[in-house]
Amino acid sequence: MIRSFKRILVLAPHTDDGEFGCGGTLTRFIDEQKEVFYAAFSDCEKSLPPGCPSGTLARELGEATSLLKIPAANVFNLGFEVRCFPRDRQEILDSMVKLGKDIRPDLVFLPSSQDLHQDHGTIASEGLRAFKLSSTILGYEVPWNNLSFNTTCFVTLTEDHLKTKIAALACYRSQNQRFYSSEEFLRSLAITRGTQVGVKYAETFEVLRWIM
Amino acid sequence: MIRSFKRILVLAPHTDDGEFGCGGTLTRFIDEQKEVFYAAFSDCEKSLPPGCPSGTLARELGEATSLLKIPAANVFNLGFEVRCFPRDRQEILDSMVKLGKDIRPDLVFLPSSQDLHQDHGTIASEGLRAFKLSSTILGYEVPWNNLSFNTTCFVTLTEDHLKTKIAALACYRSQNQRFYSSEEFLRSLAITRGTQVGVKYAETFEVLRWIM
Amino acid sequence: MIRSFKRILVLAPHTDDGEFGCGGTLTRFIDEQKEVFYAAFSDCEKSLPPGCPSGTLARELGEATSLLKIPAANVFNLGFEVRCFPRDRQEILDSMVKLGKDIRPDLVFLPSSQDLHQDHGTIASEGLRAFKLSSTILGYEVPWNNLSFNTTCFVTLTEDHLKTKIAALACYRSQNQRFYSSEEFLRSLAITRGTQVGVKYAETFEVLRWIM
Amino acid sequence: MIRSFKRILVLAPHTDDGEFGCGGTLTRFIDEQKEVFYAAFSDCEKSLPPGCPSGTLARELGEATSLLKIPAANVFNLGFEVRCFPRDRQEILDSMVKLGKDIRPDLVFLPSSQDLHQDHGTIASEGLRAFKLSSTILGYEVPWNNLSFNTTCFVTLTEDHLKTKIAALACYRSQNQRFYSSEEFLRSLAITRGTQVGVKYAETFEVLRWIM
Amino acid sequence: MIRSFKRILVLAPHTDDGEFGCGGTLTRFIDEQKEVFYAAFSDCEKSLPPGCPSGTLARELGEATSLLKIPAANVFNLGFEVRCFPRDRQEILDSMVKLGKDIRPDLVFLPSSQDLHQDHGTIASEGLRAFKLSSTILGYEVPWNNLSFNTTCFVTLTEDHLKTKIAALACYRSQNQRFYSSEEFLRSLAITRGTQVGVKYAETFEVLRWIM
Amino acid sequence: MIRSFKRILVLAPHTDDGEFGCGGTLTRFIDEQKEVFYAAFSDCEKSLPPGCPSGTLARELGEATSLLKIPAANVFNLGFEVRCFPRDRQEILDSMVKLGKDIRPDLVFLPSSQDLHQDHGTIASEGLRAFKLSSTILGYEVPWNNLSFNTTCFVTLTEDHLKTKIAALACYRSQNQRFYSSEEFLRSLAITRGTQVGVKYAETFEVLRWIM
Repeated sequence: MIRSFKRILVLAPHTDDGEFGCGGTLTRFIDEQKEVFYAAFSDCEKSLPPGCPSGTLARELGEATSLLKIPAANVFNLGFEVRCFPRDRQEILDSMVKLGKDIRPDLVFLPSSQDLHQDHGTIASEGLRAFKLSSTILGYEVPWNNLSFNTTCFVTLTEDHLKTKIAALACYRSQNQRFYSSEEFLRSLAITRGTQVGVKYAETFEVLRWIM
Repeated sequence: MIRSFKRILVLAPHTDDGEFGCGGTLTRFIDEQKEVFYAAFSDCEKSLPPGCPSGTLARELGEATSLLKIPAANVFNLGFEVRCFPRDRQEILDSMVKLGKDIRPDLVFLPSSQDLHQDHGTIASEGLRAFKLSSTILGYEVPWNNLSFNTTCFVTLTEDHLKTKIAALACYRSQNQRFYSSEEFLRSLAITRGTQVGVKYAETFEVLRWIM
Repeated sequence: MIRSFKRILVLAPHTDDGEFGCGGTLTRFIDEQKEVFYAAFSDCEKSLPPGCPSGTLARELGEATSLLKIPAANVFNLGFEVRCFPRDRQEILDSMVKLGKDIRPDLVFLPSSQDLHQDHGTIASEGLRAFKLSSTILGYEVPWNNLSFNTTCFVTLTEDHLKTKIAALACYRSQNQRFYSSEEFLRSLAITRGTQVGVKYAETFEVLRWIM
Repeated sequence: MIRSFKRILVLAPHTDDGEFGCGGTLTRFIDEQKEVFYAAFSDCEKSLPPGCPSGTLARELGEATSLLKIPAANVFNLGFEVRCFPRDRQEILDSMVKLGKDIRPDLVFLPSSQDLHQDHGTIASEGLRAFKLSSTILGYEVPWNNLSFNTTCFVTLTEDHLKTKIAALACYRSQNQRFYSSEEFLRSLAITRGTQVGVKYAETFEVLRWIM
Repeated sequence: MIRSFKRILVLAPHTDDGEFGCGGTLTRFIDEQKEVFYAAFSDCEKSLPPGCPSGTLARELGEATSLLKIPAANVFNLGFEVRCFPRDRQEILDSMVKLGKDIRPDLVFLPSSQDLHQDHGTIASEGLRAFKLSSTILGYEVPWNNLSFNTTCFVTLTEDHLKTKIAALACYRSQNQRFYSSEEFLRSLAITRGTQVGVKYAETFEVLRWIM
Repeated sequence: MIRSFKRILVLAPHTDDGEFGCGGTLTRFIDEQKEVFYAAFSDCEKSLPPGCPSGTLARELGEATSLLKIPAANVFNLGFEVRCFPRDRQEILDSMVKLGKDIRPDLVFLPSSQDLHQDHGTIASEGLRAFKLSSTILGYEVPWNNLSFNTTCFVTLTEDHLKTKIAALACYRSQNQRFYSSEEFLRSLAITRGTQVGVKYAETFEVLRWIM
């Protein structure tokens, strides 16, 4: 049978990037009985808002991924230092190679090849290196980091998928002042992407490699 | 002074493409006392829904541009045959060269260089030919015709600009079943584009040529 | 379930382009019980070698598609004039729109967006127009027509898939002097593409649109 | 009003890159009463020709920017080590974020996204990160560092603008053996770029982001 | 031996495009004993300035190519109708295929793949079709027709090569009011291109295909 | 005379990359009496298979280049640490600048600009910096490291050239389990590339800069 994806790995530079970039798609995959793994490379201890106790984002990551029904054993918090990923690129690549051996994903999500943020860019480059021979690789959009975006792949979503994505992002209470976790914006983006392919809601991805 | 645009020409393959592609921006330009010209290359007589009287789209074009406060004398309905622009390309180019001589625009809006529709593609190619030496040229987005879009230029909009755009598109009652004229979609697109540059609402354009 | 492709439509400018561009993949799809449709836009009556009876390529198309186990009722010989597709582009688009309504394919194969041949280029452009909102669209490679090729998607093949592709191309006896139907070249290309993703054999495609 | 640029910031990897890349445009902006800021990231102490006293390039930077009528208080000499910008990228980004907070520029000039020199490339990447949400961003050309250049924006110049640019570059006496500060080359480049848009003289820029 | 070019064919949409695009390079090739062929697809009878006798451009083409020392027997004036090349594309392709059979060039010059003029674009597309398997193909620049240009290949020129190019263009007296035949512009362009590779003068080309 | 290449420098990130990327072309160049230099930036001591004595790859490099008839004095083993080239980029650039001064190559081969491996990417970037003003620069393909490849230049090869390439790669006995040194794959790749330009065998290159 045409390889239909069974084991999906999300590479999130920071906690919540995965929920934002492909939260609706993950929800749909999980509904369809696929196994999802989520690796956050930094829980951004250094960037926590003042007054926030240590470990806040790690805890919120746990809540958000639990709401998405990703088993806790499938969630990895790798603890790299926020903003310094270019410096740590070889160690990050090594950790991905190890994840690849343990998980053997057939589909990997990571930031797009054009993402401007230095940590996102590092995850995108090292992720391509680690998974290029074994996995389909899709780059998710982060509109404020993309000067432009290759909208090559669309995953259509239902109202329920979108609601779950919104709820997962709402778990990040320490980040909730962020414009990008507002329901209005999340709905607007899903409607905009859906319209490009004639459906109500969608998420879009850059196809870096597709292996059937 | 840095050339600030004073005479703006919109090239719309079909009536309503201009309102969709840059209606908010036109509203803002007109608010700022700039002179706007609107050329529709086809009023799509051949594509009118059954039962629609001849001249319907021409009439709706008049209402929509009037609502945008474009003087009637600045609106041109050029009457080319819908879907056959590639066949008529030289005549279309000639009509643009004439418009250019009469209007001397310093800013021209046209479909983006990647627009898939044959009529849009013809207006984009011939428009570049006609205006490349004299004008700044911006390509507007038509999401269902763009496999991908270079979001290089953003025009920020107010709530009022957006409302006027929505009202102008509502003048096309014969087309109102179209998904792309729904208020929900128009708001979603404006919010999505605004978020890319940290404002509430925006329209985005591909910069083909910018002359200062 | 993630939409796994069920109805596949191949757009071949000329008889045998489909077998060359995606013959191994079609074989694999048919093995997996998917329904395949094949539209040849020209049987190249004007280009037949001297001494070849009229209808030769049409007959060979029947043999080749039968060998691939595509039902005869799913094979369309549309009879456009070879080398003149740009002139007939609107009629070709209309025929594709009709095919789309009748077949409702979820996956369409066509020449890549960079194919230099004028007939291939026409099928690529019009195919994108006809199927952009409804189908996943993959561009196949034709190495002597591509200055460069975006090898984004790989379909892995078995020895049997490759043998069937070779056998299908061998049905075009009137073309058999062509270098590209030699077993040596077909094997070399499959091995080269396979190596890019670490398998024995593959065919590669440009992803123009992927809808899940 | 359409945001007409009021506060312009030039990011020069090394002293004299700004004068070369956009010296004519700065002259025109200053003529038009705009406020210009100039940040040089290195004064290349390590690369001074033998026999040149320490501080030579810093002093020449002062003369050149004074000739351009940029107030001394608007000129920043940041003192990073020449050729080592990739190593110091986070510190460079931090310094840009600080400049952004202090100056709030609406227009930023930096090396183009394709500039091959490692220091230029670092300023281009970090500058995009620092200013992507707030400013129009234009990349200037450095012909011997660009394999190719996207000539998207043209600023037309008068004879006086060009003369001032030439005079400003002549202030760098320690570099005057450089081919690129010869009057003949500077005139040739301005004429070549002007001809692309039908005027006598121009400078050209890559549009990375334009916010109106 | 590495194939060093021996038979060079220039495809000029209109008389004088070849001299402008690669006149210096042709001079150098001829100095080096290579054989050059020049095909002008239109002598622009329809565009002659008022008062100009019929055949003026054909005559000037003869003078210019003679000055370049291209044998008269190697110059072809094909007489297609100016501005209408897209309509005549198949006939143009047929004429190129014939030229190819007669001349067997190992190097072909044509307008670049990005040239905006409809006649130039047609020669570029059909030329690629005609010569893709047999020849190295270089696209020349026409700065007012190129939104951007891939400066991949540089041919270095001497003062004498440049002077001959200027003299050849001066033969087109009926066009001499054209800005692009001024000595000042031709020198400026040669200096600008030379500087990109560290020499005094050069012409630049887009490499479409290089066969060694 | 058109500069025909006389001094060729190959930049190989690791021993055997040069033989794989351009071994056939080197053989042809040497047949044609050109002088070839080969710089390997790492002999991968850290990556030797278990049980392999230190110096194995350095020794195999000597055998392979000797088989290609590159004089031992023209082979440089620079000893950088495998996988860590990004960290050592300035030192690598310095070593290239020195090679350039000593050798004065007119043609340089390096990995393509799209090569995903971090060491290959470093050699590609630094090589462009070091040789951009003085040399023609061609990027070779490494299919499992290229998501896509710009096949702009083709060097046609004879059966003997291909056999020598295969024999040279066979000298790397410590790597011989590698799929890419199998004769079947090397022949398949040469046939695939040859077919793109209508010959039996070829190697393909990305043209980064061509100076004639």
